[in-house]
Amino acid sequence: MMHARSSTDNSTLAQQQAIRAVEAALGPKAVTTDAQDIAPWLTDWRGRFHGRTAAILSPDSVEGVAQVMRFAAEHGVPLVPQGGNTSMVGGATPPADGSALILSLRRMNRIRSIDPAAGLAVVEAGVILADLHAAAAAHGMRFPLTLGARGSATMGGLASTNAGGTQVLRFGTMRGLVAGVEAVLPGGEVFDGLAALKKDNRGYDLDHLLIGAEGTLGIITAITVCLYPAVVQRAVAWAGVPDPETALSLLRRLERASDSVESFEIIPGDSLALVLQHIPGTRAPLAGPHAWHVLIEATTANAAAEAPAVLLERVLGAAITDGLVADATIAASEAQAEAFWRIRDSLSAAERASGPAVQHDISVPVATMPRFMIEAAAAAEARFPGTHATAFGHLGDGNVHFHVRAPAGVDATRWYGEDAPGVTRFVHDLVVAAGGSISAEHGIGQMKRAELERLSSPARLASLRAIKAALDPQGLMNPGKLLGLAETPRAP
Amino acid sequence: MMHARSSTDNSTLAQQQAIRAVEAALGPKAVTTDAQDIAPWLTDWRGRFHGRTAAILSPDSVEGVAQVMRFAAEHGVPLVPQGGNTSMVGGATPPADGSALILSLRRMNRIRSIDPAAGLAVVEAGVILADLHAAAAAHGMRFPLTLGARGSATMGGLASTNAGGTQVLRFGTMRGLVAGVEAVLPGGEVFDGLAALKKDNRGYDLDHLLIGAEGTLGIITAITVCLYPAVVQRAVAWAGVPDPETALSLLRRLERASDSVESFEIIPGDSLALVLQHIPGTRAPLAGPHAWHVLIEATTANAAAEAPAVLLERVLGAAITDGLVADATIAASEAQAEAFWRIRDSLSAAERASGPAVQHDISVPVATMPRFMIEAAAAAEARFPGTHATAFGHLGDGNVHFHVRAPAGVDATRWYGEDAPGVTRFVHDLVVAAGGSISAEHGIGQMKRAELERLSSPARLASLRAIKAALDPQGLMNPGKLLGLAETPRAP
Repeated sequence: MMHARSSTDNSTLAQQQAIRAVEAALGPKAVTTDAQDIAPWLTDWRGRFHGRTAAILSPDSVEGVAQVMRFAAEHGVPLVPQGGNTSMVGGATPPADGSALILSLRRMNRIRSIDPAAGLAVVEAGVILADLHAAAAAHGMRFPLTLGARGSATMGGLASTNAGGTQVLRFGTMRGLVAGVEAVLPGGEVFDGLAALKKDNRGYDLDHLLIGAEGTLGIITAITVCLYPAVVQRAVAWAGVPDPETALSLLRRLERASDSVESFEIIPGDSLALVLQHIPGTRAPLAGPHAWHVLIEATTANAAAEAPAVLLERVLGAAITDGLVADATIAASEAQAEAFWRIRDSLSAAERASGPAVQHDISVPVATMPRFMIEAAAAAEARFPGTHATAFGHLGDGNVHFHVRAPAGVDATRWYGEDAPGVTRFVHDLVVAAGGSISAEHGIGQMKRAELERLSSPARLASLRAIKAALDPQGLMNPGKLLGLAETPRAP
Repeated sequence: MMHARSSTDNSTLAQQQAIRAVEAALGPKAVTTDAQDIAPWLTDWRGRFHGRTAAILSPDSVEGVAQVMRFAAEHGVPLVPQGGNTSMVGGATPPADGSALILSLRRMNRIRSIDPAAGLAVVEAGVILADLHAAAAAHGMRFPLTLGARGSATMGGLASTNAGGTQVLRFGTMRGLVAGVEAVLPGGEVFDGLAALKKDNRGYDLDHLLIGAEGTLGIITAITVCLYPAVVQRAVAWAGVPDPETALSLLRRLERASDSVESFEIIPGDSLALVLQHIPGTRAPLAGPHAWHVLIEATTANAAAEAPAVLLERVLGAAITDGLVADATIAASEAQAEAFWRIRDSLSAAERASGPAVQHDISVPVATMPRFMIEAAAAAEARFPGTHATAFGHLGDGNVHFHVRAPAGVDATRWYGEDAPGVTRFVHDLVVAAGGSISAEHGIGQMKRAELERLSSPARLASLRAIKAALDPQGLMNPGKLLGLAETPRAP
């Protein structure tokens, strides 16, 4: 906790002026300078990135955010926007040199409206995902995006990082669920794009520019999101298949038969074995061994439609008859369905329990993913003898988590420090050669910035930098994240 | 055709140098300087905008486009990108002062690949929409976006203007159908974003920035588009309803019952009367008079699913029982279905036949559209005595074509010149007050530029200008379109 000792003592005069201006304008509740209170927000939740700051500024309205932005611009003080602090890439952790203040959106936590008939809700940036789930459910509706951090991740952060999760196959990422954006731009002007217009051709799409910008172009203060009718039936199945290519063929069959498939997760046989070995209370869903497994979830919001369990039985039955699937089972109860999902959700923990490993959140075009999974794993193992490479996850999204485990018996600290970065560069090179993305759903943040710069085409990188410089000429928005341009904030 | 007399005689030295460089690099087929050959491309298809140019440059590859762009940048010559020249807002017509050259994408007309299993095609900018429809059909697939100009509109233009059409309700606009973009940026660098990644969080979304940018930030040279399984059954219905609010309730019922509704078009009773009066061979689908009508199309690609006709019968029958719908009929044949659509497609022609009128392509949030249609029409008629205002079109998209007909007996030329601009400003003010868009699907081009600047918030306008200046600092991309910034191209 050495980094938590930041206080107003080692802040700059400019920061002091900005903090005093915010306190005078918004009151003492909007300013936190106590080192103890600040400490939890200086480290990302996985404990990989550490920063310092003199204050957390917490306005509770869009006008308050605009005032904070104007004071920051006036005094040349960079701001790090923060929601639930659940970034996987250090995207919400302030710089280590204490040069920035944290702008917390957590007090902006109102659900401004829910309109079940229109299928829309307007939520402020600080609304926690699980709270929106509950509010939608109370209206017989559903906000379909969900992920492990739903109890702390905020809607503003989810939009700013274009979050994914387990339901992307059917509903898309946040980009597909956001129907409007309200944001405060770096100069302190409010951009009001909340109106949910299905068609709007008034020039460059600023909503899409702000979604996924990781707070480097402005602060999303509220969003209009799409709601869907609540699920009335779901079914979860587990199937054994010989290889990822066959798994993809099975997915295509399911998609042709229905649009009710929400999740299609692929799991290698040896990853399942690690779960069974390390995670207490887990058991194999199928009797025999299989090289690969898939976890399938189908749902419907329409009581009159074909039941998801009937659909899965029908398609999986035909696939077994046709020799595509070796064996399959449909969860007979909610408890069994949860047990299947627990295996999927325990894959990373089981990997960690079995030794050092580096993880990569990558995507390639869906059709090429089966071959990529096999060939990239073989290439990584050949290049780094003794390692074991596996890929699992959202096959239907063309997004897998590609893990490379260290050779048995290595010193973890030495391997992470000396070998792991080279492994990551090797894997990323394979991804780029396959036309893919080195960040499928986690964003760039601090963690992948150097790799983004190393692997982006000059045209792409120059465009990103030009946009950043155009919209945030003072370099005050989330410095050190996404792009190198903002690395050195300009002092006033 | 006075404006068609442009020739190399009155072009600038810089233009001559650029033209010669393109000819030397790409050969004579890539350069058209003959005034007769150029003439058809100097006027928009509706004959409202007229321009001049010294040459049409027609590269047939992305490398050729990049070379043209580099020569243009070197010599400081602005370029007007052009596809099928079907813009509704003068977006592809060169400036009247002859300061720009036309960059035609029509020779880039290859379908690079079609992958039915993945549901993807890669098409060059100059591919005509109808040609993609045919190519997809040959693979049992379908590219769902369609519109009246499908025989000449090109895929690059459709993407650059984020085109809509009649199938948006189910499939979205071009923005929702484009899975990847290849573009040449103003400096001549190629941006290759064609890979269809369902998840990609590597910073600002350049694809979405280029879609709908009307060629003012770069030239889209190819796109990856989504294909869907071909339709196996369709049904078209016509229903009479008391008001737009009831029409929207009917749409909500249909959406709850099925996701197979593709079109839901609303038509006022008096507009139908105009069609029956002015368009030969049309007849009313229903026996009695109704204040409002809706045209509904439902389709399915799944032979095992509920037949669209059965769905429409079921939902419309219940709506009649519940007093929501006064009367309804389902087309008994393809010929009758086409006859229903012909009425819808003849609305503008019938309006024109009945006298001068100004048309507005506008959107507001779907839920507020029914009230807007009634109240805005009443307000316009009260403000401009003797006029008649009607709105019809894509109710389910929150997008209608709002027409105001001139008072009977006015002089058309005088009315268009003196009164119509005030009517348009009045209607646009109402749209903005309702949180809507003054351009739902046609874009800004030349026609709506002044209104965009008058009605955009300072924050929005400043952001658009900053992006334009950042990515096209020389102001060479489609000058005079979308934003004032590019109005005066900088001479070298």
